[in-house]
Amino acid sequence: MRALWLENQKLSFRTDVPKPEAPTIRMLLAGICNTDIELTRGYYPFRGIPGHEFVGELNGKRVVGEINAVCHACEACRSGRATHCQNRTVLGIKDRNGAFADYLTLPVENLHVIPDSIETEEAVFVEPLAAALEVQEQIRISSDDRVLVVGHGKLGRLIARTLALTGCNLTVASRGAAIPEKHFDVVIECSGNPAGFEIARRAVRPRGTIVMKSTYAGELTMNASSLVVDEITIVGSRCGPFDKAIELLAAKKVNVRDLIEATYPLDDALTAFGHAQRKGALKVLIQCRP
Amino acid sequence: MRALWLENQKLSFRTDVPKPEAPTIRMLLAGICNTDIELTRGYYPFRGIPGHEFVGELNGKRVVGEINAVCHACEACRSGRATHCQNRTVLGIKDRNGAFADYLTLPVENLHVIPDSIETEEAVFVEPLAAALEVQEQIRISSDDRVLVVGHGKLGRLIARTLALTGCNLTVASRGAAIPEKHFDVVIECSGNPAGFEIARRAVRPRGTIVMKSTYAGELTMNASSLVVDEITIVGSRCGPFDKAIELLAAKKVNVRDLIEATYPLDDALTAFGHAQRKGALKVLIQCRP
Repeated sequence: MRALWLENQKLSFRTDVPKPEAPTIRMLLAGICNTDIELTRGYYPFRGIPGHEFVGELNGKRVVGEINAVCHACEACRSGRATHCQNRTVLGIKDRNGAFADYLTLPVENLHVIPDSIETEEAVFVEPLAAALEVQEQIRISSDDRVLVVGHGKLGRLIARTLALTGCNLTVASRGAAIPEKHFDVVIECSGNPAGFEIARRAVRPRGTIVMKSTYAGELTMNASSLVVDEITIVGSRCGPFDKAIELLAAKKVNVRDLIEATYPLDDALTAFGHAQRKGALKVLIQCRP
Repeated sequence: MRALWLENQKLSFRTDVPKPEAPTIRMLLAGICNTDIELTRGYYPFRGIPGHEFVGELNGKRVVGEINAVCHACEACRSGRATHCQNRTVLGIKDRNGAFADYLTLPVENLHVIPDSIETEEAVFVEPLAAALEVQEQIRISSDDRVLVVGHGKLGRLIARTLALTGCNLTVASRGAAIPEKHFDVVIECSGNPAGFEIARRAVRPRGTIVMKSTYAGELTMNASSLVVDEITIVGSRCGPFDKAIELLAAKKVNVRDLIEATYPLDDALTAFGHAQRKGALKVLIQCRP
């Protein structure tokens, strides 16, 4: 089958990759995430087909899939933290081929059927929308809270849109705009780079919370003592609830279509990656099947 | 009056420091904290009399004092976070002379009378014991939790002793001992140096919590992406509840006397500081009045 292939941080387009075993999901549409781009920068030493945001077809139904394939036996699984399974493979990220291909396989338990009311171009946002919703799984946001989102890329906008539903007092940091210092109860850092943390750190109030969403290659340096003195809480946040994301899309509560910047056929996946890496690019999609 | 004086990170002993205004608390006993030592290393650019752990005498009563003198007018004060007052002075740390002297002054509202059942040598631990208890003000520790304390200095031992009262499954990291990886629900980092964070980071389980207690000069470097992937929570933790600390000491629920390593008269405060900086030193006290 056709597939985009990552090896030694280099992408190539191949046509000789074996079709995966059953359940074999036929790819319809896939989205390029910042994590995919960071993989090409050495964020994680993945070798294989990247891509973890997708809509596919199985037995005539459109499906999306949770990206962590888990063992159900380890302590994390038994403690109800299956997305942290110690033996997990992760679609297009860790030991499991991903979505930029003609087919992928995932355990059936990972799949969610997409209702007819959701277009395929919307459904491809279920995975990042679920990740955005994870913030609210981890911390309670009330309508009194002053919340700042640092990062106005694809994920930042999804997070801002989901937070807006809480009725909180929401600010999105934009380049050059002055941000009040030590002002915000909650700051979501999804800028994709270490500079975003500095902005978040200055903006959060004492005893406030910084939610970290960015995954990138490289280290972060911070003043640990000031975290102690200001009693700041930092919460790392990753994958979220697919069911809630599907509900939001079905209820038309979050618009995602305006986040689509371009769509390329699978044959042009390398060009699509080039596009996705442009500064300020929004969601670039890869159409796996016309 | 006599006082230890810090200026440009250098300590000197002076006998010409003016006695502070009323309420003038006559010093009895003071303790040297790691923060005092870090001040001499540039942790915070304080100029004046250091020392914030003390027992003094006012109107014939023994008192201890909360170290943050606050404005009651700023947003932090009005929001119930007075220890984070934007205009605060902090005893022996920020814009307020501290305890290694014959006298100090603090607002009366900061003072707590020590009951007769608590010895002065115990009462001098109220401030650090309160700081230890702050951990439990911030996060709920249950008897099911696996808790690791990284750091077995003065503060680490107080924290371990307060945590032991919760009935949790408690481990204190000791030098050279193997610590299981990704195992602990909660890790308290009170080692006083950046290496302690690395130990904490390796030991905490996915979705676990690291409580940071160490204040030191210098920066901390970490892998931010791994915090995101493992959804770790980091909580900075500083000053705690004096009333609860006094209760614990009065009820003899926490032993502190065995943490006293040495006691020096105020005239020998410089020698006391030298002693407190020895590797592995426990609490060094300064007797301000025989």
